[in-house]
Amino acid sequence: MAVYTQVADDELAAFLDAYDIGAPVSYKGIAEGVENSNYFLQTERGSFILTLYEKRVDPADLPFFLGLMDHLAARDIACPTPIHARDGEALRTLAGRPAAIISFLQGVSPRRVDIRHCAPLGGALAGMHLAADGFAMARPNALSLAGWRPLFDRCGPRAHEVQNGLAGEIEQELEFLEENWPADLPTGVIHADLFPDNVFFLGDRVSGLIDFYFACNDYFAYDLAICINAWCFEKDGSFNVTKARHMLNAYRAVRPFSAAELAAIPVLLRGGALRFLLTRLHDWLFHPEGALVTPHNPLEYHRKLRFHQGVKRPGELGLE
Amino acid sequence: MAVYTQVADDELAAFLDAYDIGAPVSYKGIAEGVENSNYFLQTERGSFILTLYEKRVDPADLPFFLGLMDHLAARDIACPTPIHARDGEALRTLAGRPAAIISFLQGVSPRRVDIRHCAPLGGALAGMHLAADGFAMARPNALSLAGWRPLFDRCGPRAHEVQNGLAGEIEQELEFLEENWPADLPTGVIHADLFPDNVFFLGDRVSGLIDFYFACNDYFAYDLAICINAWCFEKDGSFNVTKARHMLNAYRAVRPFSAAELAAIPVLLRGGALRFLLTRLHDWLFHPEGALVTPHNPLEYHRKLRFHQGVKRPGELGLE
Repeated sequence: MAVYTQVADDELAAFLDAYDIGAPVSYKGIAEGVENSNYFLQTERGSFILTLYEKRVDPADLPFFLGLMDHLAARDIACPTPIHARDGEALRTLAGRPAAIISFLQGVSPRRVDIRHCAPLGGALAGMHLAADGFAMARPNALSLAGWRPLFDRCGPRAHEVQNGLAGEIEQELEFLEENWPADLPTGVIHADLFPDNVFFLGDRVSGLIDFYFACNDYFAYDLAICINAWCFEKDGSFNVTKARHMLNAYRAVRPFSAAELAAIPVLLRGGALRFLLTRLHDWLFHPEGALVTPHNPLEYHRKLRFHQGVKRPGELGLE
Repeated sequence: MAVYTQVADDELAAFLDAYDIGAPVSYKGIAEGVENSNYFLQTERGSFILTLYEKRVDPADLPFFLGLMDHLAARDIACPTPIHARDGEALRTLAGRPAAIISFLQGVSPRRVDIRHCAPLGGALAGMHLAADGFAMARPNALSLAGWRPLFDRCGPRAHEVQNGLAGEIEQELEFLEENWPADLPTGVIHADLFPDNVFFLGDRVSGLIDFYFACNDYFAYDLAICINAWCFEKDGSFNVTKARHMLNAYRAVRPFSAAELAAIPVLLRGGALRFLLTRLHDWLFHPEGALVTPHNPLEYHRKLRFHQGVKRPGELGLE
């Protein structure tokens, strides 16, 4: 949780002059999100989120992210809508940072995932996958198979600081995935980071999908695998097959899920686990002293990876 | 900026069951405030601030703080109103912490104080002093003259870590203040921490005074001195006599300011500077490793103290 860039009231007022949303009546830094600075902003015309993009976001990617939100919101996906200034631009500069105003969404992220969240999440994910069809831009997934080895090259020599033998295990897993990663699954725009804190609920209904700043083009089934990893393990490390089944069944009620996609799920789950193990390991080893954000424990995803290494068929996960 | 205590969505929903404000539709941790955890909370009935009181607040003081806000809000002071639950209680427990919901106030805190802020601030301060009259509870100021020496006893031995010779200077100043601190000035409930980030403006109007968690009984003129120190120095350390004059004149247009109060202002400014020098020095020296909050630089108030040590009469500050 952090606000990296402070915005002065007079800077904000000048920034808002470019928009048609009235003068600010309140803004407060939000202690959420680890990548960017976010403010809850109220103006004379409504409530918004003001985001300043910090160093970890490549400014060249921002038109993709904002364009995707525009595209999805126009197709009634419950996601933030970028607010365009009078000159038509949604991406601007504030306090020396790329910045955008997006619509404010109601809803509450589940801190404890319950079985009742999983079907709505699966349906919302599939709806997003379908709605992204026709979006004109593309962005390769820098954190898929081809991106893992460079990340490992950087973290591997220090992985033993986190756990003895971890580097060797990751090396073996990388070799397995390089040999077994599926080819030719249905592809499109995926969210790629749909953890519970990026999903708002009102009651049992998904009221918002947020934080599209890892969105990219990749296998739809890989997006589902990321969600299964993030939503279907219990705090004690056990895997909840009922949650996974609810999620998959709700997903394929909206978008057909092919036999090839289902067969690939065990490998995709291993890849998804390795991806978050590697990025968390990286942040754990290299986060600066005095950082505002406490890195996630990489070993949570090490445990998930080990679980998936013992799974041969989707049926063992409750998925048929 | 920090949220020390995380509140789960199901905990929050259960907590709100005690109130008549509807179900939560959004809540976000606010990256502001150094003492407590604050959430911006929207329910079906409106917008609120949810505060969880952390370790630095003595729970025994909370009835005073919340009662004072009740008292002031009933007298049309723009301050948060505690929301009482159906059983009449405003002070409750959430996530193991004392907690309260207060009304949400519109407005923006000035990050850069401008001359136009100072008269409205002076008027609002005086209005608060008058409105607090008749409040039935009292709370001694633990951070006035009698409290400074114990604080110094703890910080003094390590003060040289911040600046050579600092302990000796503070000792001399303490002796001066112990001999010269005024007696028998008009007394009442003061805010005691009315820094710019605790004051909201809409345009040139004060729309909110917040954060009453240092409020206590002390000299009204001492509260004004704290404000002068907080609002009337420029970033380069220079003192802006016009700001101070605007503040005082607006203050006394609302509440009479006696000749004795005016004469005491130079000593009160020294005391107010020493108070924040000592508490910031303490937090600087003793803040835990990895704390979420970066302590304020104590030397800002050392410079202010040195400035005031050279002032003999209020006229030198533009105050007549």
